[in-house]
Amino acid sequence: MATLKDIGVAAAINILSAFIFLVVFAILRLQPFNDRVYFPKWYHKGLRTDPTHSGAYVRRFVNLDFRSYIRFLNWVPDALRMPEPELIDHAGLDSAVYLRIYLIGLKIFVPIAFLAWAMLVPVNWTNSTLERAKLNNITSSNIDKLSISNIPVSSQRFWSHIVMAYAITFWTCYVLLKEYAKVASMRLQFLASDERRPDQFTVLARNVPPDADESVSELVEHFFLVNHPDHYLTHQVVYNANKLAKLVKKKKKTQNWLVYYKNKYSRNSSERPFMKTGFLGLWGNKVDAIDHHESEIEKLSKEIVAERERIADDPKSIMPAAFVSFKSRWGAAVCAQTQQSRNPTIWLTEWAPDPRDVYWPNLTIPYVSLSVRRPIIAVAFFFLTFFFMIPIALVQSLASLEGIEKAAPFLKPVVEKDFIKSLITGFLPGIALKLFLIFLPTILMIMSKFEGFISRSSLERRSASRYYLFNFVNVFLGSIITGSALEQLDSFIHQSANAIPKTIGVAIPIKATFFITYIMVDGWAGIAAEILMVKHLIIYHLKNFFLVKTERDREEAMDPGSLGFHIGEPRIQFYFLLGLVYATVTPVILPFIIIFFGLAYVVFRHQIINVYNQKYESAAAFWPDVHGRVITALVISQVLLMGLLSTKKAAQSTPFLLALPVLTIWFHRFCKGRYKPAFIIYPLQEAMMKDTLEHATEPHLNLKGYLQNAYIHPVFKASEDDEDGEEVLDENWENESVVVATKRQSRMNTPVPSKVSGGSSPSLPETVQELPQP
Amino acid sequence: MATLKDIGVAAAINILSAFIFLVVFAILRLQPFNDRVYFPKWYHKGLRTDPTHSGAYVRRFVNLDFRSYIRFLNWVPDALRMPEPELIDHAGLDSAVYLRIYLIGLKIFVPIAFLAWAMLVPVNWTNSTLERAKLNNITSSNIDKLSISNIPVSSQRFWSHIVMAYAITFWTCYVLLKEYAKVASMRLQFLASDERRPDQFTVLARNVPPDADESVSELVEHFFLVNHPDHYLTHQVVYNANKLAKLVKKKKKTQNWLVYYKNKYSRNSSERPFMKTGFLGLWGNKVDAIDHHESEIEKLSKEIVAERERIADDPKSIMPAAFVSFKSRWGAAVCAQTQQSRNPTIWLTEWAPDPRDVYWPNLTIPYVSLSVRRPIIAVAFFFLTFFFMIPIALVQSLASLEGIEKAAPFLKPVVEKDFIKSLITGFLPGIALKLFLIFLPTILMIMSKFEGFISRSSLERRSASRYYLFNFVNVFLGSIITGSALEQLDSFIHQSANAIPKTIGVAIPIKATFFITYIMVDGWAGIAAEILMVKHLIIYHLKNFFLVKTERDREEAMDPGSLGFHIGEPRIQFYFLLGLVYATVTPVILPFIIIFFGLAYVVFRHQIINVYNQKYESAAAFWPDVHGRVITALVISQVLLMGLLSTKKAAQSTPFLLALPVLTIWFHRFCKGRYKPAFIIYPLQEAMMKDTLEHATEPHLNLKGYLQNAYIHPVFKASEDDEDGEEVLDENWENESVVVATKRQSRMNTPVPSKVSGGSSPSLPETVQELPQP
Repeated sequence: MATLKDIGVAAAINILSAFIFLVVFAILRLQPFNDRVYFPKWYHKGLRTDPTHSGAYVRRFVNLDFRSYIRFLNWVPDALRMPEPELIDHAGLDSAVYLRIYLIGLKIFVPIAFLAWAMLVPVNWTNSTLERAKLNNITSSNIDKLSISNIPVSSQRFWSHIVMAYAITFWTCYVLLKEYAKVASMRLQFLASDERRPDQFTVLARNVPPDADESVSELVEHFFLVNHPDHYLTHQVVYNANKLAKLVKKKKKTQNWLVYYKNKYSRNSSERPFMKTGFLGLWGNKVDAIDHHESEIEKLSKEIVAERERIADDPKSIMPAAFVSFKSRWGAAVCAQTQQSRNPTIWLTEWAPDPRDVYWPNLTIPYVSLSVRRPIIAVAFFFLTFFFMIPIALVQSLASLEGIEKAAPFLKPVVEKDFIKSLITGFLPGIALKLFLIFLPTILMIMSKFEGFISRSSLERRSASRYYLFNFVNVFLGSIITGSALEQLDSFIHQSANAIPKTIGVAIPIKATFFITYIMVDGWAGIAAEILMVKHLIIYHLKNFFLVKTERDREEAMDPGSLGFHIGEPRIQFYFLLGLVYATVTPVILPFIIIFFGLAYVVFRHQIINVYNQKYESAAAFWPDVHGRVITALVISQVLLMGLLSTKKAAQSTPFLLALPVLTIWFHRFCKGRYKPAFIIYPLQEAMMKDTLEHATEPHLNLKGYLQNAYIHPVFKASEDDEDGEEVLDENWENESVVVATKRQSRMNTPVPSKVSGGSSPSLPETVQELPQP
Repeated sequence: MATLKDIGVAAAINILSAFIFLVVFAILRLQPFNDRVYFPKWYHKGLRTDPTHSGAYVRRFVNLDFRSYIRFLNWVPDALRMPEPELIDHAGLDSAVYLRIYLIGLKIFVPIAFLAWAMLVPVNWTNSTLERAKLNNITSSNIDKLSISNIPVSSQRFWSHIVMAYAITFWTCYVLLKEYAKVASMRLQFLASDERRPDQFTVLARNVPPDADESVSELVEHFFLVNHPDHYLTHQVVYNANKLAKLVKKKKKTQNWLVYYKNKYSRNSSERPFMKTGFLGLWGNKVDAIDHHESEIEKLSKEIVAERERIADDPKSIMPAAFVSFKSRWGAAVCAQTQQSRNPTIWLTEWAPDPRDVYWPNLTIPYVSLSVRRPIIAVAFFFLTFFFMIPIALVQSLASLEGIEKAAPFLKPVVEKDFIKSLITGFLPGIALKLFLIFLPTILMIMSKFEGFISRSSLERRSASRYYLFNFVNVFLGSIITGSALEQLDSFIHQSANAIPKTIGVAIPIKATFFITYIMVDGWAGIAAEILMVKHLIIYHLKNFFLVKTERDREEAMDPGSLGFHIGEPRIQFYFLLGLVYATVTPVILPFIIIFFGLAYVVFRHQIINVYNQKYESAAAFWPDVHGRVITALVISQVLLMGLLSTKKAAQSTPFLLALPVLTIWFHRFCKGRYKPAFIIYPLQEAMMKDTLEHATEPHLNLKGYLQNAYIHPVFKASEDDEDGEEVLDENWENESVVVATKRQSRMNTPVPSKVSGGSSPSLPETVQELPQP
């Protein structure tokens, strides 16, 4: 039971560490040698050139302009300044909408916090239950005096909490409704924006039935020519190119090594570089590195050619699936929304994802196996959630002092030393748990991939919902009722249905201080650490120092990856859950949550503008999930409040809470009916409007040419010529801007500083910006 | 605890009463004056003429041909003889598929009964648990010796019950799968049959948004011309003609009275018929009946004309909904399956029901109110299910001796008499309950109507699923745990989740004898009474004697109505539930259930061939519901067996049962994905095939003419001319057979006896059949 003082100390520590992170970030980001770490997005877009390649030697790496340090918090207004439409243009709709989740947090919790502090805190404070309890040696803190625990049993004051619960529910639903409407219209506007996108014209047809007389390609063409005679345009069958993709990747890697050795040789031409052929170059025969890699590449090239021929000739390498393109958006929308065949499990059509969003390896999974994979993963996830403590406990017992001594007796003298001993007993068990939690999103992502989703966005959405569930069971319930999830499950099964909310509800106020600390560590310091990107910073410099051989490698080392929706979103949702559960119980927690949302909003806005490089665009398809999870948190909070109040003998008021979950679920259903279709269906009216407009403006458009190669497996594009293959193909459609990224590339030749955020970069010498790229 | 002897007596009584019903039926059906009661379907189809209008006077009413009495059970082979394709042709797919439900019962339970008697009965019998228990004065019957109760606690013999549960699950699922596939293909074949049906070309568009400049009709036309330019053909707006329908109905009634009085006058022209204008003609001014009715009709005619004009002129009487017809089935299928507008709550399109299936009054319900009506009815149904005992208990207490004496003291002397006393105490409470149960389907149907479904078939489906739930809670659980549903609900809430199946499971074997009696009363005697149609017989003769004034009235009095899916199907499902639950527990019950299914199959096959007149055709759209309810029963049986076994301390074997509900639910999901779409979606491939065929065979078809009036409110058709209005309109499409019924009517002029079942009618004199209809 932490006192106010304890919380104050924890707050001070966390604020300090957050502040230190921010200051360190402010300094590091101004150093030119970190430029690629903190502004990779601008490099990626070709709007920024490398300052380390020019200027005085020292100034290339260290920023000596002291004026820039004074304005070290300047990135905050810079991050906030970019208006939303430009942000959508700059980083895509997914990122812009992702930021809105933090904004909703603020919108929901700021008014609730004011109301709760104005209404509940005085109501709670002006009791003396806990003081009287203290006389009986029951410990409590000042924090608890502000919480519902301070209200005597069967008091009439509980009415204020019920009124508050209603207010919270209505306000949250109102904000959610507004936001759903806004995001839906943003999505439709984004889809209806001027750009032509291949996925507007294309559906993915899966489970093409086998036919003895026709190849898959012929069958697809005939089927759609017959059943969509006025609309069918072209199609692209799906090849099983997983092996080819592996070979191409290997060749690329070898080529990089070749370039590296050539560079090395050219810098020091006195001796030919040698290497060992064994594992990691540590042992094996010593060979001439350049010759070896050249012969390797030749061998791989031959293999690739052979594999390509095999794919082209072998009908088995053609999957029973195809991307079918139509003459109009209307035709595609119709085909995607209708059932084609009498047998509903063949000729399945769905709206094709954005070509960059396609997760190619999963397209080769036979459709029949999907119905088996789903339940397998459901069972696996159940075990992961409820039994995850078992392997960890095993590792922990193995990682304990006795475990190590038993497994490796020869380490005994080392282990017995005091320092090592305390290290093992103090840190190892924690690290075992932490390591597992770090790998959890990866494990969940592997599960989703096994399940066979065919777009990256759906993979991330599925992982996110699993992560949320895991968090709810193991972090939220686990912290409240302390005990492994399995023990909880066992006790829940043996409890009556209405005893469960009581058990949890009673424990909630007690755990408030724990969660306040959690918010400060994870939500404040953690978010501040996020902006510093320590891991990425270290890895980039390590790579740059040891591994980067070519310019291309540097670009790859610089790549910070995507935003990680499947990791970030469940984390935010956890704060929604905490906020909604504690709003009526211990409103003291709300300001902490508000600070989290505010800080995270600014930090992630900065990161999205300057760092993350979204790999695909799903046009905010994740919103229904976000909405659904906030609703879930709301219902959980209502049920737990009911449980809590029923133990407080406020029996005559508890029934009034019963209406809340019912209303909330009804609201959810209403929202689902009203807005969800916008996220999965392309309405015919929209499609027709767009088609008509296009016919009027571009009557002689060569749509077939535009669509013919839009859904080719990337390995076929890239492997033509490793360096320029992609560009060669893209050139054909250069003027038509296949995807957002391509349009951006055309700006490569006219590097201009960003209208707004450019100011946040360290003031480079004018000459640097003028110089052509190396 | 009933003994074998008790059961034998009950069986004897019920078999006897069933036999008496069948004999009485056999006699009654041969009497010519009952001909219209027992063969109305043939009259309705115009394939049979009235024997009472011709021949010798006595022979008109009583069948004196004794030979026909000898073959009094002949109707059984007759009923079974008609092959299924002819049955579909004769009575529609709905009825034919309805009969398959009984067949499934036989298919599932006959092999299970054999297996259970071969395996479980010996296993149960060869124990002496109950005999030993009897020594301790615990009563048990011979029936119980055959049940699972006879197996000692924690015996290894429970493995045989688990194996049996697996066998039952697999066999039931196998039968269900085969049947689902069969029914789905029957449906598709039926839809693809040669007949052109207006609903194939038509979608119902609802929630047309209001527009300031255009009328609904213009708006609909423009919207679909723009968004389905190549496919839109015509449309028919929906008028709010509920008031007009009422007026027309009233006029029709008055006209019947007029005809009656005119007939009366013509028969006895000595005095003009007089009547009183008050309630039911009991009081009021005495007026000349013919004059009075003539003036009434004139008044009503004027009102109808005024109302018609109002509907035509007043834009408010046009609902924001329309039946939109397309040039091809493909166009309609596309429109029905896609989302039209950006806002998914406007321009809602769904496949239009068969014109006869449309429930017109509900089309005028504003769409927005539907989302409110659903939850209201859900709550109302909840209260109906769990609180239904309260008003009945009230009525019962009022109907008790003390209640009556209190409410009406003046009745005391009457009530105190012995006979009346026993009548009140013995019968009234039972009658109160029975009355409520008789009205239950009507109440449920009113609920469904209030919910706003727009087709009769969906109304019946919804009522059926509610009835099943009610039966499950109040009859099944209510009989097993004896106590009102409310008490059960209360105890369930306060029990832990895994204690509930235990509580119920333990009680199951005890109640076996009760359910055996229930099956015999409701399932044997009840079904035999069904074929006698006592109610319909009495009502027809009463009407014929007192009320029938015109030939048309006689036809209406003769009309036995539809099959009543919403009453019959839940009743069958209750037997599935009993059979599956008791198959492992008390297999003795199975033969009783098999007899029910067999008897009911024969009886309903006879009734469907000869009696019921299906009012619409939904092409077996109810099958997914039937399938789902059998699956529900299966899962319930598995869970209850788990509960029962866990109390028998067969702990090591119970976990093996856990897999069963999981597998069953997975199977259900598989079936849903594989077959359910066939019941809600018209696949494009089918539509296109049909279109292509039609274009080839009838290139100059006037489709617009065919569809233009298909979806006119029946009141507009009928009221043109009360006698012939419908025919006048229908004549235009005579050759095109608008609906199945219309095609049938064309046979009116060529009355031929049915190929097969004609033989089952009493052998009428040849001359009767030759005579023209009066």
